[in-house]
Amino acid sequence: MLNVLTPDEVLRLIEDEFLEIDDFYEIVPLDLAVGRILAEDVTAEEFVPDFNRSTVDGYALRAEDTFGCTEAIPAILPVCGEVQMGAHGAIETFPGICCYVPTGGAVPEGADACVMIEYVEDYGDGTVGILKPVAPGQNMIFRGDDVSPGKELMKKGRNLTFPDIGALAALGKSEVRVKKRLRAAVISTGDELVPCNENPEPGKIRDVNSSLLAAMFTVYGAEPVKFDIVPDEADLLEKALNKALDDCEMVLISGGSSVGTKDETARVIEKCGKLLLHGIATKPGKPTILGKCGGKPVFGLPGHPVAAYFVSKIFVLPTMARLMGIELKPYSVTAHLSENVSSNDGRAMYISVKLESFDGRLIAHPVRTKSGLITALAGTDGYFCIERDCEGLPRGAEIQVYVNEVY
Amino acid sequence: MLNVLTPDEVLRLIEDEFLEIDDFYEIVPLDLAVGRILAEDVTAEEFVPDFNRSTVDGYALRAEDTFGCTEAIPAILPVCGEVQMGAHGAIETFPGICCYVPTGGAVPEGADACVMIEYVEDYGDGTVGILKPVAPGQNMIFRGDDVSPGKELMKKGRNLTFPDIGALAALGKSEVRVKKRLRAAVISTGDELVPCNENPEPGKIRDVNSSLLAAMFTVYGAEPVKFDIVPDEADLLEKALNKALDDCEMVLISGGSSVGTKDETARVIEKCGKLLLHGIATKPGKPTILGKCGGKPVFGLPGHPVAAYFVSKIFVLPTMARLMGIELKPYSVTAHLSENVSSNDGRAMYISVKLESFDGRLIAHPVRTKSGLITALAGTDGYFCIERDCEGLPRGAEIQVYVNEVY
Repeated sequence: MLNVLTPDEVLRLIEDEFLEIDDFYEIVPLDLAVGRILAEDVTAEEFVPDFNRSTVDGYALRAEDTFGCTEAIPAILPVCGEVQMGAHGAIETFPGICCYVPTGGAVPEGADACVMIEYVEDYGDGTVGILKPVAPGQNMIFRGDDVSPGKELMKKGRNLTFPDIGALAALGKSEVRVKKRLRAAVISTGDELVPCNENPEPGKIRDVNSSLLAAMFTVYGAEPVKFDIVPDEADLLEKALNKALDDCEMVLISGGSSVGTKDETARVIEKCGKLLLHGIATKPGKPTILGKCGGKPVFGLPGHPVAAYFVSKIFVLPTMARLMGIELKPYSVTAHLSENVSSNDGRAMYISVKLESFDGRLIAHPVRTKSGLITALAGTDGYFCIERDCEGLPRGAEIQVYVNEVY
Repeated sequence: MLNVLTPDEVLRLIEDEFLEIDDFYEIVPLDLAVGRILAEDVTAEEFVPDFNRSTVDGYALRAEDTFGCTEAIPAILPVCGEVQMGAHGAIETFPGICCYVPTGGAVPEGADACVMIEYVEDYGDGTVGILKPVAPGQNMIFRGDDVSPGKELMKKGRNLTFPDIGALAALGKSEVRVKKRLRAAVISTGDELVPCNENPEPGKIRDVNSSLLAAMFTVYGAEPVKFDIVPDEADLLEKALNKALDDCEMVLISGGSSVGTKDETARVIEKCGKLLLHGIATKPGKPTILGKCGGKPVFGLPGHPVAAYFVSKIFVLPTMARLMGIELKPYSVTAHLSENVSSNDGRAMYISVKLESFDGRLIAHPVRTKSGLITALAGTDGYFCIERDCEGLPRGAEIQVYVNEVY
């Protein structure tokens, strides 16, 4: 029998037992930084923009020269020139004159506003008529309006999105300090397993978890290190675990995590380090092991791929985030159940769903199978949880769905 | 002046003008398939599982032999052996006997149920006592319970998630037919631009959009092809566009998309093909161009990075999805505004937000800047939209936030 912990207890245990890995960073070119974990706080070191810029195509001038003008009585001003994109400082605008400036062009010294070209009439004789007054500062941005030195822009631990990359480019950061990719060992164990490119003989099954877990680590920005299938033999498993601990920052062993005579994972972890827990009050995923060997987390995951999937999402990912100092943001989307779902196990129950848009709402179709494997994974969009003290949810109930990584 | 289309009109235009690219696929090993776009429907070709399996550690037997047993009056059965994981067919269970079977082990011919080991007492003399009756089929799954030949599992166009990879492994699909990576040209144009690794002279600014848009395509699974910065000269832009059309399936030109004297993008697109639209009723993003050259989409994006960002999310991504036949699922999350936001432009307005979890709800902090660039991109979590016929939203209003790609 297992002494199970609740999911919250497990997450606290992970926080308590593991720390962010020290000095675990590298410098990468900005073009390769999207999806990587920022390893430094980013603070502006300069003014952006570095000069006053027009936000419209039009004329830069002194706002006061336009006060009181109308379409009937335009303010007539001589044009002293044209600002070229990328040029600066050649033209000054004094009271009583104006100059053409394109969107993004430098507003000349002396001007304090821009008038949109739509409100300007060109008389063709070197003068223009301004048809609508502007206030000082209108249609332009000033030096440092966006950021000025010292402004804190991004915190370390952030998973860099593509708009972040744009912001870093604007700051001239052509190289970024990011966390190294975590190396995560994936070991499948079980006498019944054959590699997934083989046809299993009767009684054997394909090793699903190696591919599943390696793909998960790829999605999460880690580097999976796949091991060959290990039979149910303690010596061989111990050998594989020791090699994994040498090479990797984290180890996942799938299979052999229960309490049967052939379930060696817990014993092997105990031999190489310390067993932190054996059993979690979730369904699926109860026979889960977490150990600590050489300071590194070693998970023993259930061999059933659906259980391995949920345990990975709910416990392995936060462990990885802890080691890498990642600020996790597991957003959920609101959906409505398409059918009643019951639950009375005294364990938090996780259920895969397919989502469908209907009439502006998301409908969640629970995927319910009799210990199904492929059907509970293939084509699913995410999952939701029924808490241990809830006996079920009715059709139409609002649920929070944690969606898989999509666009 | 621009004749603007509404966002919905633009999306319909994209659907009408562009088609999925024919025969645009390649075969990749399963280990490299996560995040790729499935280019075939996946249908099961075999039974999973391929044999009857126990879902518990326990004893396989005939259910009828347990009917009526209790803890006080156990059903006593001789044990005829032990099923080995991965073995099959060696043991048959006839009425009146049982055999040990581990979780996932093959249930022997003749047995129709399994009893959990917790409800079995081992007398140590070759017999066991069953303390609790089971019904036929209990604690086991039958051949084909998960899938059987012909069951449709995944549709082409799906962005393969890591649970999908697990399902494909279970089916023995060690190679998968996926869409090729779309090659997307990224051309920044403007006399004022310098590469982002240079310090701009006064009047110049760094080219943000090349990095921003290349990172976007990377995130969306395409292959960005970055061009050198093109000055505001029609000949040079035309040359770059023609090269891009030779090499790529899609082209993004950023800058020069407005109607100023130096805004050559529309004219150059017209020379190389057809202008489909110039102007979209969105804020930001109004001076956006879409053309079609040699059947390929060519976007002219506003030079302002924040505008380029929104146009990319809202129009470039669906165009890419159209070309690749991707089934898009742009989920949104529900959040509550932290302050009043007004809008009265007659255009759909897009506003970046930072999200914060508070008391079980998500709070969206709108990022409002005066044409800000870095501040409206750096560290933002997503965006929401105020429709053109809405004049604003009050503090606390429930909004749908489209989050950036995160874990």
